[in-house]
Amino acid sequence: MSQESESEYTEGDLRNTGMSLKHDRTWDYELDRIVEAVEERDATTVGLQFPEGLKRRAPRVVDDLRDLLPDEVNVMTSGKPCYGACDLDTYMMRRTDVFVHFGHSPMKESEKILYVPLFSNVDVLPIMEESLEELADPDDDENVGLVTTAQHMNKFDEMRTWLEERGYTVETRRGDERLTHEGQVLGCNYASADVDADQILYVGGGKFHPLGLAMEHPEKKVVIADPVNNVVTIADTEQFMKQRYASVHKAMDAEEWGVIFCTKIGQGRWETAEEIVAENDNAYLITMDEVTPDRLTNFGFDAYVNTGCPRITTDDGPQFKQPMLTPGEYKIAIGEEPLDSLEFDTFHGTW
Amino acid sequence: MSQESESEYTEGDLRNTGMSLKHDRTWDYELDRIVEAVEERDATTVGLQFPEGLKRRAPRVVDDLRDLLPDEVNVMTSGKPCYGACDLDTYMMRRTDVFVHFGHSPMKESEKILYVPLFSNVDVLPIMEESLEELADPDDDENVGLVTTAQHMNKFDEMRTWLEERGYTVETRRGDERLTHEGQVLGCNYASADVDADQILYVGGGKFHPLGLAMEHPEKKVVIADPVNNVVTIADTEQFMKQRYASVHKAMDAEEWGVIFCTKIGQGRWETAEEIVAENDNAYLITMDEVTPDRLTNFGFDAYVNTGCPRITTDDGPQFKQPMLTPGEYKIAIGEEPLDSLEFDTFHGTW
Repeated sequence: MSQESESEYTEGDLRNTGMSLKHDRTWDYELDRIVEAVEERDATTVGLQFPEGLKRRAPRVVDDLRDLLPDEVNVMTSGKPCYGACDLDTYMMRRTDVFVHFGHSPMKESEKILYVPLFSNVDVLPIMEESLEELADPDDDENVGLVTTAQHMNKFDEMRTWLEERGYTVETRRGDERLTHEGQVLGCNYASADVDADQILYVGGGKFHPLGLAMEHPEKKVVIADPVNNVVTIADTEQFMKQRYASVHKAMDAEEWGVIFCTKIGQGRWETAEEIVAENDNAYLITMDEVTPDRLTNFGFDAYVNTGCPRITTDDGPQFKQPMLTPGEYKIAIGEEPLDSLEFDTFHGTW
Repeated sequence: MSQESESEYTEGDLRNTGMSLKHDRTWDYELDRIVEAVEERDATTVGLQFPEGLKRRAPRVVDDLRDLLPDEVNVMTSGKPCYGACDLDTYMMRRTDVFVHFGHSPMKESEKILYVPLFSNVDVLPIMEESLEELADPDDDENVGLVTTAQHMNKFDEMRTWLEERGYTVETRRGDERLTHEGQVLGCNYASADVDADQILYVGGGKFHPLGLAMEHPEKKVVIADPVNNVVTIADTEQFMKQRYASVHKAMDAEEWGVIFCTKIGQGRWETAEEIVAENDNAYLITMDEVTPDRLTNFGFDAYVNTGCPRITTDDGPQFKQPMLTPGEYKIAIGEEPLDSLEFDTFHGTW
């Protein structure tokens, strides 16, 4: 399969440049499991939650379910933003008989939630073949860490075997309880890459995950094999880190701080937020679900600490008018920790 | 008092043009009531919710409460948008011992909620004096309806007496159970103006409320006496109505409809949403709290029906990429009702 796909590539083939159109991907929405749950529970309401990138598919999934389900069953879709398994629509979950969360693996199993992971069917081996150019030869360094996202988890054994056949010792682990699978990473958790290897191969779409990985593990080389955009790159955190230091420096002048406690089910760090407010008379607790620039503008604080999703802070940070820091960065800005203690903010545990 | 303020005005006085700075307004946050509730309930958490325009005051209110309350009491502020008494932060309400909603009058009394209305202290009589130029002389038409917002409710009797002293018969009523006070209007409810008068005097800040009023009661002349911006105008709905007709026309070509059910406590019209979806195979139910262009973009429907806040539809409508209609407008767009049945969408009942 890998050989066949490989042989299709020709000089100038856009699929090699990262400029190509994305692979067509079809998904298995596991409608049979949903229909079964409706029958078992005698359900009259079904709630569907899709990640942002898949919301466009919602109408067709609803069509299919309407065909399969009795007329009296109401199928509805969540219109709230959704960025992970940490981000369940709990309103919908409480008010529907069957609640389906698409596109993420379970952060925590619950009878209330039907998780449908939506595994990608993209072939990962051609791009892994290309990634060999960036990995050390197994004769020089045989250890390689292997990580991927929930979307490609169905190919994880295939990836591992393929690397082993080429002489590598593949180091993997299941990071912690926040993660469902061995080798799985989340935007906020790279404990699965905490393995005995100086090089980590990330197989998956986009740079969002490997950039976090490289920030969390700055001592490791992170090779990105992206089978969706057909491109191999090395994660480069320089621009990210510059932005973080700039935000911390700017926040050093802040007099009043807004301290954000995120109310999303898997994004709450209450003790962290409470501790900051307890120790700083100029810190004020704000509770919210979506953390957006618009919502904070009216408060007029000089700087913010976000105890919710770290990626809002690091990736969306520049969009906020005032500096937005992680809890660790906050400690640096108020002089409690040295500047060189700056590190990537990760999230552990479930809820 | 009115005479005194009046006499200060001189030709070119910016306060007469609507271009002046807003009046300074101070508010009574009724901190004593909050402290009392904390003591009575032995509370350890206090949640504060402010409307958008008052969020900036939150840090100083928190400061004052921290001074008045024991150290172990946590005071937190809601960072979710808030546009009315229909829009309670129910997450915060459920998770704090004392929950304070500032700036709106009760849509429904509840032991869980401490409403602090924040009455304006602005003098309303000078601008009422000016509004006489737009009202019919009492000898020609003595009936005048009188309405205001929660903010100026504390001056309602004063307004009524002042008009009566000038020979008017003041027609007022409490619209329905959604409203707390006689003469009160909400952005979504003008039942208080359903009185035996061809002219309605609205005393209050801004054009938001009187525009809705004029759309709901197109047969009445709506005179706006705005004591905040010191300006008297007549509500003109022409531009609004043109936009509504344009949206309806555009939506007539829609094949697939997104039907929004709003999950905000006071903005849900489940039967309306459910009925639309039950009767149209090309209609799909979406549940969400904040209804924003960004959140709908990913779904890709041709048009939307919003069963939540009517003012999102009429006032923010042009910001959405696809036509966004009220339930009544939807019926026109699908050919179920004639074009001339178009009327303003109002909201009744509580929750």
